[in-house]
Amino acid sequence: MQLGDLQLLQSLLAENRWSSVFILTDENTNQLCLSSLMMCIDFPINPEILEVEPGENSKSVEISHQLWWALNDLGADRKSLLINLGGGMITDLGGFIASTFQRGIDFIQIPTTLLAMTDAAIGGKTGINLGQLKNQIGTFQNPVAVILDQAWLETLPSREIRSGFAEIIKHGIIADQTLLEACFNTDVSNQEEVFQLLEPSMKVKANIIEIDPFEQNERTFLNFGHTSGHALESLTLQDEDPLLHGECVAWGMMIATLLSIDCGGLKAEKANDLIRSIDSYYPDIQPEVEIEKLWEVMLRDKKNSKGKVNFVLLSDVSKPMNNVEISFEQFNKACANLQAMREEL
Amino acid sequence: MQLGDLQLLQSLLAENRWSSVFILTDENTNQLCLSSLMMCIDFPINPEILEVEPGENSKSVEISHQLWWALNDLGADRKSLLINLGGGMITDLGGFIASTFQRGIDFIQIPTTLLAMTDAAIGGKTGINLGQLKNQIGTFQNPVAVILDQAWLETLPSREIRSGFAEIIKHGIIADQTLLEACFNTDVSNQEEVFQLLEPSMKVKANIIEIDPFEQNERTFLNFGHTSGHALESLTLQDEDPLLHGECVAWGMMIATLLSIDCGGLKAEKANDLIRSIDSYYPDIQPEVEIEKLWEVMLRDKKNSKGKVNFVLLSDVSKPMNNVEISFEQFNKACANLQAMREEL
Repeated sequence: MQLGDLQLLQSLLAENRWSSVFILTDENTNQLCLSSLMMCIDFPINPEILEVEPGENSKSVEISHQLWWALNDLGADRKSLLINLGGGMITDLGGFIASTFQRGIDFIQIPTTLLAMTDAAIGGKTGINLGQLKNQIGTFQNPVAVILDQAWLETLPSREIRSGFAEIIKHGIIADQTLLEACFNTDVSNQEEVFQLLEPSMKVKANIIEIDPFEQNERTFLNFGHTSGHALESLTLQDEDPLLHGECVAWGMMIATLLSIDCGGLKAEKANDLIRSIDSYYPDIQPEVEIEKLWEVMLRDKKNSKGKVNFVLLSDVSKPMNNVEISFEQFNKACANLQAMREEL
Repeated sequence: MQLGDLQLLQSLLAENRWSSVFILTDENTNQLCLSSLMMCIDFPINPEILEVEPGENSKSVEISHQLWWALNDLGADRKSLLINLGGGMITDLGGFIASTFQRGIDFIQIPTTLLAMTDAAIGGKTGINLGQLKNQIGTFQNPVAVILDQAWLETLPSREIRSGFAEIIKHGIIADQTLLEACFNTDVSNQEEVFQLLEPSMKVKANIIEIDPFEQNERTFLNFGHTSGHALESLTLQDEDPLLHGECVAWGMMIATLLSIDCGGLKAEKANDLIRSIDSYYPDIQPEVEIEKLWEVMLRDKKNSKGKVNFVLLSDVSKPMNNVEISFEQFNKACANLQAMREEL
């Protein structure tokens, strides 16, 4: 898999190795990003545009069925290329379609949100939902390339950028002290500063995936902050103004850091520093749900089984440990302590 | 991937590495094979049975959707095992379901037809149809094991066995002279004799796939006899008594052998011997369709493009060559010559 900018995309297309080119977008990226892509890139073959509705509902079996037919009806063959232009929904969905059409055609990911740039577009995970069950159906398949362009960040609301930024912090915490320090010196409202962090952040993920592509061991470190973060995200999905993925992960990372003192051997001083730094970016993110409800959702997660909840914790910064079993009492206490601690900040 | 008998299945299950076990069958194999499997094998966990209707129509997106839900509703998780018990339809469909459920769970193929034993169950190709388009959606994914048991052959009509036998002959022709000679000394009505050929036949396929898993080059040799064979199969599908896959492949191999004299450098004497031997098993298989119609279907095949038809031919026995472009005139002449030749036999 190659990582590069629009120049890389242009040179790949110029090699002319594909029989036809398709671009998958949603209405948003069709309006905000497609025309700019078409202006920047000289396509040797006129691409066909496939458009789905924005939002998680498009990651469905029904939409996949329609897209497979669309590719077929538009004459796609084994040598066709699918370019996925959009956020994580588009890169997940398009990756799944490409990896299964005629047993797999080439695809290129052009993530247009910070979250998709740092997380969804690399690592070879593709997926669609089964009803409300996220990514229940999917494959492991690497794209030919992931194309990054800072210009897309200009299309995003600042809250979206702050949300994606949490995944960069996560990569710093689990594997790269230098990246972590750079994060905490970053002004998240400055797109250029944030964009500079992307390459080292993606390298963390790429390194982990190279060691453990199918999530047997080290890859689970990438779930740091996600155990409780995902549960919080699910519970606020129906709210009028739901929390964003990265906001929930930020809160989940603070909880996991606090749990790491008693259950991972992380020094209290380091934990407190880390929580203080994360909190400075997300002071407003507080779960307004009952802890019992959060726990119930965590128990149902496909990564857990038999009434126990497994966390990724830290023995130190850059030293994650997986499969640490946490009880409800421990979790409940950590939630209370975190709240008290943040009120004092 | 492991290849073995029911003993292997028993010892794999005894390792107890799966959280739950599912068996996919169709109505036929549920009646004819499942109870015998349940009697022979001591399952450490009671398996859940998933049943679909027999026939190609079950290899659909709709049935896949139902099966994904069934797995989910029955509590399948990443450590579950899916055992596919049936002919090629079941092994293709079940392989696809397993390779995409939660991004891939373990599966074991238990092919119950000779065709599935020799062809469909090994090689990592999984697939479902898109409408009438065969295997348009699928993945490359190896099963944990392929389990062979001669007892299943007793459940098959003799015509089915003769059909599957064509794929064994094909493996002999493209890669194994000893196997080929053994084929032509085999009484196809003797199940034990036929079963003996399976292991060397599967080795041919396994060797080729090891060299070229994703069908970039050598794997296309396995299409010997299939270019025109598939077209014939499609055209007779709507007949009251359609030709079987292997019967069409047998005819396709005779055509490809004849074409190999002029276009592959195969010596005429060897070609005639080969055709005579194949014909002795399939003297009744004659295409009752117009050659022009066959050609049209061949042009539409996903392996061809731009009005040309690519054949796998032979420069000698065990020396296949791929991507040999054949014109309609050459094909038409070969059909006529083959017919004249077989009338004289």
